[in-house]
Amino acid sequence: MGDDTTHSSQNTDPWRGRYADRAAGMVASEVRALFAVASRPEIVSLAGGMPAVGALPLEEVGDMMAGLVRDRGAEALQYGSAQGDASLRESITEVMAREGIDADPDDVIVTVGSQQALDLVTRIFVDPGDTVLTEAPTYVTALGVFAAYQARIEHVPMDEHGVVPEALDEHLTRLAAAGRRAKLFYTVPTFSNPAGVTLAAERRPRVLEICRRHGVLVLEDNPYGLLHLDAGPTRALRADDPEGVVYLGSFSKTLAPGLRVGWACAPAAVRAKLVLAAESAMLSHSAFAQLAVDRYLRTQPWDEQLKEFREMYRTRRDAMLDALSATMPPGVTWTRPAGGFFVWLTLPEGLDAKAMLPRAVGARVAYVPGTGFYADGSGTANMRLSYCFPPAERIRDGVRRLADVVGTELSLRDTFGRAPASAPDQGPQTPAPDLA
Amino acid sequence: MGDDTTHSSQNTDPWRGRYADRAAGMVASEVRALFAVASRPEIVSLAGGMPAVGALPLEEVGDMMAGLVRDRGAEALQYGSAQGDASLRESITEVMAREGIDADPDDVIVTVGSQQALDLVTRIFVDPGDTVLTEAPTYVTALGVFAAYQARIEHVPMDEHGVVPEALDEHLTRLAAAGRRAKLFYTVPTFSNPAGVTLAAERRPRVLEICRRHGVLVLEDNPYGLLHLDAGPTRALRADDPEGVVYLGSFSKTLAPGLRVGWACAPAAVRAKLVLAAESAMLSHSAFAQLAVDRYLRTQPWDEQLKEFREMYRTRRDAMLDALSATMPPGVTWTRPAGGFFVWLTLPEGLDAKAMLPRAVGARVAYVPGTGFYADGSGTANMRLSYCFPPAERIRDGVRRLADVVGTELSLRDTFGRAPASAPDQGPQTPAPDLA
Repeated sequence: MGDDTTHSSQNTDPWRGRYADRAAGMVASEVRALFAVASRPEIVSLAGGMPAVGALPLEEVGDMMAGLVRDRGAEALQYGSAQGDASLRESITEVMAREGIDADPDDVIVTVGSQQALDLVTRIFVDPGDTVLTEAPTYVTALGVFAAYQARIEHVPMDEHGVVPEALDEHLTRLAAAGRRAKLFYTVPTFSNPAGVTLAAERRPRVLEICRRHGVLVLEDNPYGLLHLDAGPTRALRADDPEGVVYLGSFSKTLAPGLRVGWACAPAAVRAKLVLAAESAMLSHSAFAQLAVDRYLRTQPWDEQLKEFREMYRTRRDAMLDALSATMPPGVTWTRPAGGFFVWLTLPEGLDAKAMLPRAVGARVAYVPGTGFYADGSGTANMRLSYCFPPAERIRDGVRRLADVVGTELSLRDTFGRAPASAPDQGPQTPAPDLA
Repeated sequence: MGDDTTHSSQNTDPWRGRYADRAAGMVASEVRALFAVASRPEIVSLAGGMPAVGALPLEEVGDMMAGLVRDRGAEALQYGSAQGDASLRESITEVMAREGIDADPDDVIVTVGSQQALDLVTRIFVDPGDTVLTEAPTYVTALGVFAAYQARIEHVPMDEHGVVPEALDEHLTRLAAAGRRAKLFYTVPTFSNPAGVTLAAERRPRVLEICRRHGVLVLEDNPYGLLHLDAGPTRALRADDPEGVVYLGSFSKTLAPGLRVGWACAPAAVRAKLVLAAESAMLSHSAFAQLAVDRYLRTQPWDEQLKEFREMYRTRRDAMLDALSATMPPGVTWTRPAGGFFVWLTLPEGLDAKAMLPRAVGARVAYVPGTGFYADGSGTANMRLSYCFPPAERIRDGVRRLADVVGTELSLRDTFGRAPASAPDQGPQTPAPDLA
């Protein structure tokens, strides 16, 4: 069936009008088509959040997998438990201990990336119309999940030290006065996606206290915590409130996303419900993927690998920050991440990042416009720049091209009063996976 | 954290009263604890639906995976597309062609087992209160999915030739008269789980015609189709109605469940929505698992392997049917499957399969009681017996032990008028994954 047929089938969808209400909240990103173009080799993509898995020792990883099938194939190729492999869950508690978390393997459920954990937590907590609070800007596909469960998404502002506790408290107080209460407060407190900022240590107990006082569960999403580029690891929110926080972790950034191994660490009763939801969603995660990750952690030099990843990402981050300083016109500002993958850039007054994107792609550089990271239409002046995937030299080229595009936009603005406008914002959308 | 702490946490769940309504439909199976006991080596388990993956050539599979990481590691360990790997989707169309399906790779989405496809189809179609029709008895975890999406589950009876078309038509007509319409008709038409029966060829066009006339989407779940033990493959429902059927397939039974690779083949507009739902649920499936299955299909003697699986399962099925004939007391009846994994057994009047289970486990044999395969409390006299996992000699031992237990129950019934009653039925429940 060719493209034409597909389109004509969609136009005459025999099941139109038969879908669930929640399907209306599932909308493809309008920039998806553009990113298909942006994957051309001549374009420097500062858009994707893909980790640099090419740096893994592939020969050793392959041998390890062969050994796993040879030694334990009947187990690795069979169904497993819905909660996940016990030995891997033990290893996961040791990973979390690096961020101050004292958890039992029974507190952990293994999921298909932390994305599935996000889906399952939302599934067991959020009825249509329930309020979910997030810091903003925030992870675009989290907004997609909340929208798919028909949540009412509201935002709390953040600054360069993470979410603003006073604003969080005020928002929850305002909700209570209106007879409402948020089910979840979603945050990426460490090296956030997309803002590249980290919740300050002194704010962390305040955020926990505020959420506890208002009876709101904290959903702490922490895929980047071990990719700290300046200081050591940050103490997780979960470390100081085991009953008030569901913590989401992932091996996608610290090992490889292609195995899809993430997890949730949750209070006992919540964890029990997550296991039932996971059984319904997929029976069990891949035993092979779980045993492979566990074997990697137990037999390979993961700490050396993490160190190598950190050095690589530090070089790339520094390349990006240096290039931004060297080339961006006055009035452009950006965050200085101490870890993770992302820089959040703010354009001067009158410039629109989404409207500018086609021109940037024409100049052979791509980024993610800021509006996707908000549910309320904010972010028109913002963009997310990733330094995780391209080598430093490519990053410098990309930033230089981007600076030229911004410079041209500024001239247009100064000549015509305003750069060309963008399409109206569509709210949270499902991005192409490599943009997440 | 020990068991005691876990239980006390559950008793004082701080998030009680905060869960979504749908979480109330997620209930653990009451026989789960019993099956933990049943996994002891001295007990013959005729309960689980685990395929015999030990029969795979583990050395070759391991080498193949090592080669995959070595040759294409940067791709296999990276994020993939939410629809799934294009080469695997092409291979899947060739697998489906064996059952008469003429599909394009673009019609296919790869999922975490066909279980996730079932979840995603329900997610995009079923609002709370919507009616889902299933044949009965039916796959227990499908009932769990429909319950988790708060569907109203109704049953259509089946006989030894599968679902009864007249009953299906009457049921849909009755719904229409009441101003209602089912969203889905769920069926396992070939070698059904748990009934072990196959929808007769002459009924297939009638079922399709009835569903088309009533505007109901057919959800054809077909994990066992290529495990035909007597004749060749059966023509799939999807083969004759590409716009009216969503077909679910899986490599869990024909290769290995531990990679969690299944799929849905759907009309174009439905498939597009499934891809958006999958992105929200997990970003993308494991690239590694997908490339591994595709490489297996393209480089290993899968047809030889299937032939070997069929011979093994045929031997085991015959052992079970022979032992049932040789040992079961009069009044016990059972189905004679032409493929798949399961025999469905009916006890004589007055016997209750759930009440009998603890005594069977005491006699070192386990099965799945029938009530879990219905949403309406039916099935008290039934049990599902699996012949897929234990070797033939163990199956014969298990059936002999079971026949003794049934004989003792019959004596009790004849002495006291009725065997001891079971607990009241709890409706659809989430089983332990190895029972699914």
